[in-house]
Amino acid sequence: MSDKKLTGAGLRGQSAGETKLCTVGKSGSGLTYCGYDIADLADNATFEEVAYLLFNGELPNEGQLAAYKEQLMQMRDLPHALKSVLQLIPADAHPMDVMRTGASFLGNLEPETDFSQQQMASNRLLAAFPAIMCYWYRFSHDGVEIECTTDEDSLGGHFLKLLNGKTPSEQHRRVMDVSLILYAEHEFNASTFTARVCASTLSDMFSCVTGAIGSLRGPLHGGANEAAMDMIQKFTSPADAKEKMAGMLARKEKIMGFGHAIYRESDPRNVIIKKWSEKLAQENGDTSLYDISVACEEFMWDSKKLFCNADFFHASAYYFMGIPTKLFTPIFVCSRLTGWAAHVMEQRDNNRIIRPSADYTGSEPRKVTPIATR
Amino acid sequence: MSDKKLTGAGLRGQSAGETKLCTVGKSGSGLTYCGYDIADLADNATFEEVAYLLFNGELPNEGQLAAYKEQLMQMRDLPHALKSVLQLIPADAHPMDVMRTGASFLGNLEPETDFSQQQMASNRLLAAFPAIMCYWYRFSHDGVEIECTTDEDSLGGHFLKLLNGKTPSEQHRRVMDVSLILYAEHEFNASTFTARVCASTLSDMFSCVTGAIGSLRGPLHGGANEAAMDMIQKFTSPADAKEKMAGMLARKEKIMGFGHAIYRESDPRNVIIKKWSEKLAQENGDTSLYDISVACEEFMWDSKKLFCNADFFHASAYYFMGIPTKLFTPIFVCSRLTGWAAHVMEQRDNNRIIRPSADYTGSEPRKVTPIATR
Repeated sequence: MSDKKLTGAGLRGQSAGETKLCTVGKSGSGLTYCGYDIADLADNATFEEVAYLLFNGELPNEGQLAAYKEQLMQMRDLPHALKSVLQLIPADAHPMDVMRTGASFLGNLEPETDFSQQQMASNRLLAAFPAIMCYWYRFSHDGVEIECTTDEDSLGGHFLKLLNGKTPSEQHRRVMDVSLILYAEHEFNASTFTARVCASTLSDMFSCVTGAIGSLRGPLHGGANEAAMDMIQKFTSPADAKEKMAGMLARKEKIMGFGHAIYRESDPRNVIIKKWSEKLAQENGDTSLYDISVACEEFMWDSKKLFCNADFFHASAYYFMGIPTKLFTPIFVCSRLTGWAAHVMEQRDNNRIIRPSADYTGSEPRKVTPIATR
Repeated sequence: MSDKKLTGAGLRGQSAGETKLCTVGKSGSGLTYCGYDIADLADNATFEEVAYLLFNGELPNEGQLAAYKEQLMQMRDLPHALKSVLQLIPADAHPMDVMRTGASFLGNLEPETDFSQQQMASNRLLAAFPAIMCYWYRFSHDGVEIECTTDEDSLGGHFLKLLNGKTPSEQHRRVMDVSLILYAEHEFNASTFTARVCASTLSDMFSCVTGAIGSLRGPLHGGANEAAMDMIQKFTSPADAKEKMAGMLARKEKIMGFGHAIYRESDPRNVIIKKWSEKLAQENGDTSLYDISVACEEFMWDSKKLFCNADFFHASAYYFMGIPTKLFTPIFVCSRLTGWAAHVMEQRDNNRIIRPSADYTGSEPRKVTPIATR
């Protein structure tokens, strides 16, 4: 694109508003939520604590957390009409289309009719997304109508039990929890900015989230962990990985899961999920996919000085937990919903409609000529 | 909001990219599509010609227009599964939630899997929207499962026949046509900008349009014609209108349908739809709603120097054609889809992901404390 004029394109580096929610590439390891470093949260908090933090500005105490988890558990089941809609979506549909449609349809049945309901609407979506994803997946792929509630008290455990139909291990619960924390929030990324533009018209929460899902669906945004998985599954060994990646670079093929639009030296989420991927590999007995991933990381650093972003070791981590590749980006939705909804609330709190200008490069003024003479 | 700091808020006056599609507040009457003045298009073109113009950059000749209209007619029917979904949406749902869900669900069944399909996906949505709106409306409100195809060769006539179940008059066809032309495109408004942000992630057309519908749903964006209708229906005469509006101003109540974020002296679309509203009033025999609307216009100009925008006389025009108020904004969707889709195509043609920055105003760095001590 370097031969094209891109005045103001992408709004890179331009401020589009204020936020209390997040810093990217600034203090600590480079990612903070409400002042807390991502590494601190990943080590010392759960996803429900992070969701509470993003929605309320402060971490919960024990009583608040227990009440919040209970509230979310009560909101998990899907209305019958939504299950019917999910049954109508074919197995070969794009899973992000399913998530987008599930969020949109739920807005018909349980609309947010007043902004005083914004916490309820956000929590409803948070609680319902694992079932929206897994109900469709299991019905369309396995012909099974699953129960949409479980006795798992964390969202990560609930998702794994819905997907696999069995109680997950403590380690799997914790890795899902950490993964959901890592993906929860990332300032004015494209899907969050979509949600804020929508919110700036004073539209409802379901519209904002539905729009954000559509943006996360784009291959330049979500989906990098799926692309990384597709790649590493083609490699048979660390040596094979390095050889084939050299070929990909020589052919100028795009390699997903490396580098970042904002981070310059490393992605603070990588070291965290990489550590968990290694533990899962050891638990699994066969560490080859992890070893291949490490070889990819070494190769990209040695040859291009590119670092793994949050997505790369997520691929092997999810794989070791038996999660189908096509559900990787929908899991991202389950997590990032918290950031989207928090940004919608923040936009509403100090709103002006987001309506930029454009540079006109089109035709000079001209007259409509009669159609017979065109 | 004047007491709050709004650095960079709303991106007002900031360029977010280039466009060949539209100028607002610049040459001619103040609104041009691809160089053509809106008044010229409203007098001398049809909506299908305008849709073709926005999608292709040039007005069609007779052969191209005939082929295009035939193509759209062939794409009008809805898949059985989509009809089933629309049947599941209750009568008290927000009609914009229905449009958003209809667009999203269709994306599951007929995905745009490659950008070479972008014209087809856009035309499919354009052709299907009247049926999505009317099938749900007639089923949920009247218990009728309508046929989704008609022999009307224009989108405006097709919509009126689907809605009313009878062949519309030539004048009604033409007013719908003009209305669809007037609403088709308006540069980087919030819904179009939503579509472009989504497109910038290289997401699919259905995601972009679904997101845009969610933004148009907001009361600061679409919906002003519905609010205008609700207001003028409460007035019993021109004198009553002026008296009650004076009371509204005194109570600082918001009056919808006047003024504009970009236009400073007049909205070029108002004079056009006002003329048609007058003709419909005369055809109708009872001109009182038109006379009341004129009184509102006079009052707002005399007391606040505020002019009618495109929405105000749309209210009476739609009313005279028997269109239920709750469908006013969904009609806006049927029209603005052309602008949204054209902007998506333009964004894709010279893309960089739209990812602005934010000014951080949140907590200083802090440590996670054990939950028992919070």
